[in-house]
Amino acid sequence: MSTAAIVVIGNEILSAKVADENGPWLSRELRALGVELRRIETVPDEVPVIVDSLRRAIGSAKSVFTSGGIGPTHDDVTIAAVAQCFARRVVTDDRILSSLRSHFGERLNAARRRLAEVPEGAIIDWCPGSLFPVISVENVAVLPGPPMLFQAGFARIRDRYRTAPIFTRALYFAIGEGSLAEHLDAAVAQFPSVAIGSYPRFDDSDYRVKVTFDGRGEEDVRRAAAFVRARIPAEAVLREE
Amino acid sequence: MSTAAIVVIGNEILSAKVADENGPWLSRELRALGVELRRIETVPDEVPVIVDSLRRAIGSAKSVFTSGGIGPTHDDVTIAAVAQCFARRVVTDDRILSSLRSHFGERLNAARRRLAEVPEGAIIDWCPGSLFPVISVENVAVLPGPPMLFQAGFARIRDRYRTAPIFTRALYFAIGEGSLAEHLDAAVAQFPSVAIGSYPRFDDSDYRVKVTFDGRGEEDVRRAAAFVRARIPAEAVLREE
Repeated sequence: MSTAAIVVIGNEILSAKVADENGPWLSRELRALGVELRRIETVPDEVPVIVDSLRRAIGSAKSVFTSGGIGPTHDDVTIAAVAQCFARRVVTDDRILSSLRSHFGERLNAARRRLAEVPEGAIIDWCPGSLFPVISVENVAVLPGPPMLFQAGFARIRDRYRTAPIFTRALYFAIGEGSLAEHLDAAVAQFPSVAIGSYPRFDDSDYRVKVTFDGRGEEDVRRAAAFVRARIPAEAVLREE
Repeated sequence: MSTAAIVVIGNEILSAKVADENGPWLSRELRALGVELRRIETVPDEVPVIVDSLRRAIGSAKSVFTSGGIGPTHDDVTIAAVAQCFARRVVTDDRILSSLRSHFGERLNAARRRLAEVPEGAIIDWCPGSLFPVISVENVAVLPGPPMLFQAGFARIRDRYRTAPIFTRALYFAIGEGSLAEHLDAAVAQFPSVAIGSYPRFDDSDYRVKVTFDGRGEEDVRRAAAFVRARIPAEAVLREE
């Protein structure tokens, strides 16, 4: 089973200066690829905290993505954290450096040279014409924070992660969770391969509860939804999607 | 220094069925209260994973908030996880039960009774007319997932968290991070009490980099911004906020 974890790095998100777009965006992409996202951690620009978070992400999922903390300034510490996590040195990548040299010419100062620093032995997914390669170490892919760059970076490596799809059905009910719970319990027991979620609404939407059925086996998903549906009075079932 | 951590609980967020609104909303509230948010973890509806995340949150911040996983269905496991985290039993709260009884009458089945279950010794912040008390155990406040209820719950306990404000200044530059980095490094060294962040834009916004200065001391924040400003050619500074 293909699983993933995301580590979102940046004081700007924790201090509410910027809303994170990359976690939600990548969640949707991974879902479409059939990858099960196991956790998202949003952490500050501090190497020890990032390393701890990376270790947990690596321990809990097959693929790990970082967002942010890439660049030439003092608060860009993701490369150092990834290197430390894998006990590797930070080295200068010649190909990135030469690309930076041709772009910046005489303006290639010490700060900009930092953009060529990578954990030793990293895989560099290069895209001609872009100054931002995607840097990977083992199962950790390092993506830049600005959403446009994050998305462009992921697009370059996306096909690596494609796996068997997750099938889903949803039932919408006119009755509350308290009336549904025992039937959902029965379905959970009957269909262990199907993940069943129950989501009540308390606003003015046209349903009171949405119940979702997710799984790798399309037939089991369909049967689990039918099983619940058969136990509920027809007038309480608004629709199935 | 007042610090916080948020644990967002829910498969629906990790599977991209729902975008989390509570983490970003509470980030803004905490910022306005002067509380430094240290981490947000989004985790699935699984007791061991939630307990692990709660322990880390408690270890890294003074106040902890959970979002979601409260309700009568099988996927609502937050109360069990909070109880386990503090090695407490789950017990039925008489006051909540009596409120549920007067609301549901004969419809108070086993599933709905679960809404009265709390970790033993929990503090119940009750609001007359609402079926959703805010349940707290030590420094962990347990809030429901639907944003309307989450916000109403936090509003009831908000004043507990108010602390000294965080002051902030921002400079907007027409030059890139590579040109700013050495000056920011100098400011970081000179003003250890000020958190300095550098945020480049790669889209068509009217600036290339926004640099923020945050701190509890208004004068230090102002001086740090002035220090950087003085080192940059005036024409490269677009504005200060």
